[in-house]
Amino acid sequence: MDKIYLDHAAATPVNKAVIEAMLPYFDLHFANPSAVYDIGAEIKKVIDEHRERVGALIGAKAEEIIFTSSGAEANNLAIKGVVFAGQKKGNHIIISAIEHHSVLNSARFFERMDYEVTFLPVDEYGLVDPDGLKKAIRPETILVSIMHANNEIGSMQPITELSSICREKDVVFHTDAVATVGNIPVNVHELDVDLLSLSGPSLGAPKGTGALYFRKNLRLMPLIQGGIQENGRRGGTENVPGIVGLGKAAEIAAQELSHSENIKRVQQMRDRLVQGISANVDRIKYTGHPDRRLPGHASFCVEAIEGEALIFMLTGEGIYANTGSACASKALKTSPVLVAIGVPPGLAQGSIVFTISRGNRLNEIEVAIDTFSRAVKKLRALSPVWKGHRHL
Amino acid sequence: MDKIYLDHAAATPVNKAVIEAMLPYFDLHFANPSAVYDIGAEIKKVIDEHRERVGALIGAKAEEIIFTSSGAEANNLAIKGVVFAGQKKGNHIIISAIEHHSVLNSARFFERMDYEVTFLPVDEYGLVDPDGLKKAIRPETILVSIMHANNEIGSMQPITELSSICREKDVVFHTDAVATVGNIPVNVHELDVDLLSLSGPSLGAPKGTGALYFRKNLRLMPLIQGGIQENGRRGGTENVPGIVGLGKAAEIAAQELSHSENIKRVQQMRDRLVQGISANVDRIKYTGHPDRRLPGHASFCVEAIEGEALIFMLTGEGIYANTGSACASKALKTSPVLVAIGVPPGLAQGSIVFTISRGNRLNEIEVAIDTFSRAVKKLRALSPVWKGHRHL
Repeated sequence: MDKIYLDHAAATPVNKAVIEAMLPYFDLHFANPSAVYDIGAEIKKVIDEHRERVGALIGAKAEEIIFTSSGAEANNLAIKGVVFAGQKKGNHIIISAIEHHSVLNSARFFERMDYEVTFLPVDEYGLVDPDGLKKAIRPETILVSIMHANNEIGSMQPITELSSICREKDVVFHTDAVATVGNIPVNVHELDVDLLSLSGPSLGAPKGTGALYFRKNLRLMPLIQGGIQENGRRGGTENVPGIVGLGKAAEIAAQELSHSENIKRVQQMRDRLVQGISANVDRIKYTGHPDRRLPGHASFCVEAIEGEALIFMLTGEGIYANTGSACASKALKTSPVLVAIGVPPGLAQGSIVFTISRGNRLNEIEVAIDTFSRAVKKLRALSPVWKGHRHL
Repeated sequence: MDKIYLDHAAATPVNKAVIEAMLPYFDLHFANPSAVYDIGAEIKKVIDEHRERVGALIGAKAEEIIFTSSGAEANNLAIKGVVFAGQKKGNHIIISAIEHHSVLNSARFFERMDYEVTFLPVDEYGLVDPDGLKKAIRPETILVSIMHANNEIGSMQPITELSSICREKDVVFHTDAVATVGNIPVNVHELDVDLLSLSGPSLGAPKGTGALYFRKNLRLMPLIQGGIQENGRRGGTENVPGIVGLGKAAEIAAQELSHSENIKRVQQMRDRLVQGISANVDRIKYTGHPDRRLPGHASFCVEAIEGEALIFMLTGEGIYANTGSACASKALKTSPVLVAIGVPPGLAQGSIVFTISRGNRLNEIEVAIDTFSRAVKKLRALSPVWKGHRHL
């Protein structure tokens, strides 16, 4: 049985070219980039070349990129780095109600330390209201963090509108772009953000890689303190093979995203999936914004069904999807994101998320539609909740 | 010209078997370990098997190991994790005067936040006096962090004596064992420590890996907050290939260290290097403790010479050594470690460190002795300081 993998937001295989690029840096070119001698300096140069590639993917300069070990680390560095560096400026932080746990928990960390956090509500599509942000900003606000796109419902925030409000009021603006970088063109100047987090695995680089863009001259306290690495902004010997992998993946992604038909093809597969499922399955809610969303992202809440049961049934037929965020899927019964967009808890249990990549094919989508529709029917036939519905 | 690499503390090539073990986890087994379906659960199991291997190397249980991206991250997690988790208990931290920058700067971070840090002095060999620690502990002391061995001078602290003082006074004890784990047998129960940091590259695992041992039930605030990974103690998708590499390297290291002749052979090479250099070069100081030191570690301060100039001259003849800590080598003119053991600043400029591994051979050591001795003579012939000395 061929596997049909439609969970690319959770993980995606590393491209052969990326693995090939990394390999020499495990043993052949193994020196410490901080070493004073020639073979160390060569590695330092390699790091900076790949820093440039990562910068180029998002329209940033090399020196505005800090390599991290994950998107989550980049988010922690952004929030804690800005707040700890600007301690005396104020004690108020604003985030949206649907941020990733790495942003949410970093903000909550400061609540225990006499900081105040405002959680901006979102509408039924998961969008933040720019007027709401404007009203929430106070003189003591030091940081606003609102994600570029949400990984559970695919909706994309009006970042430029939000960042311009912050710019006007001289408040630092961070966006978690883990869900977008690699999937759509992202430019830090168009978005006009001060900080932007990205994750390596989201763009075909290995796990254990990520980066934070920060606008030059922004004050930032390191999260991992130590030596002089990353210009004093992150201690610890650089993950050289990982950095090379991230740089190579960024180069490939930039090339692929420069052809809009690549994105269109992913979007067409997504649209067919949504249309096919909506036509075959009744009592199903398409979550997130219908248009302002990630091109390969389709998320549903299926009435009278447990998302996990559906995943297991699909897996049995070789189809891989997710119940929501991979990071939180085992920890939480009900997704805070679905609660925030007003999905009733019962319906939220039936959450399922497909994330399609450029590697998928239309015939896989057809199989997925058919399998999904049959699986829902089977599960509903077993569901006492569903039987109750039908007898109403 | 064959290279003779004697800077294994800075970096060491990854073992072929370790690379082989990692490779399938880049593309073949790429799933997210937090995913609810079968291929995710399989990766989760792989992570836990390798967690067990890392634990086994230091006598710990799998569930006492948190994977990190470096030894520096492990040190930051230990210091900040304990202090933030125990905020209300007290505001006093004790570290030695010769800690790695990741420990030193983590402690300093709290100085800006109304905490007090005591820097325990060391003797001429770099050793902390247990009585000094006993006197420094106060009722409000919440954490003591003293490294197992120093990477610049090789000296090993009397950890068991120090930790028993802390145990008696109910103070959490952390040791940075980045320089020892992989080089000598290390056991967390024999050392009786609450936390211990290790670095992957120090034991033949790839850069971008590390781990923190923490005694069960110890309260620890995550440094990288996020999802449920690492039992809620470190957010971000796990670096699966890195974890597999670290586990495999730990397994190999445990096997090799179980044969004491492997350590003895490294020590014999070191002893020959020290003896040869001392016989050939006058006005040279062997730094660190003569016996209580890392088996492959030899460090000197050479009068009337710049360490960097010596490194460059050695590199020209294919011999790789270091001026001190790779992390700090470019940042600092004078090493705080050498200052702490009372080396005059002028002499401290002539610092050179050799770190020998099991992969080195005795004939390499003979070449190094000869080349080193000639290089010192050449540099001194050019040195106005040296000429001044001779005319006195």
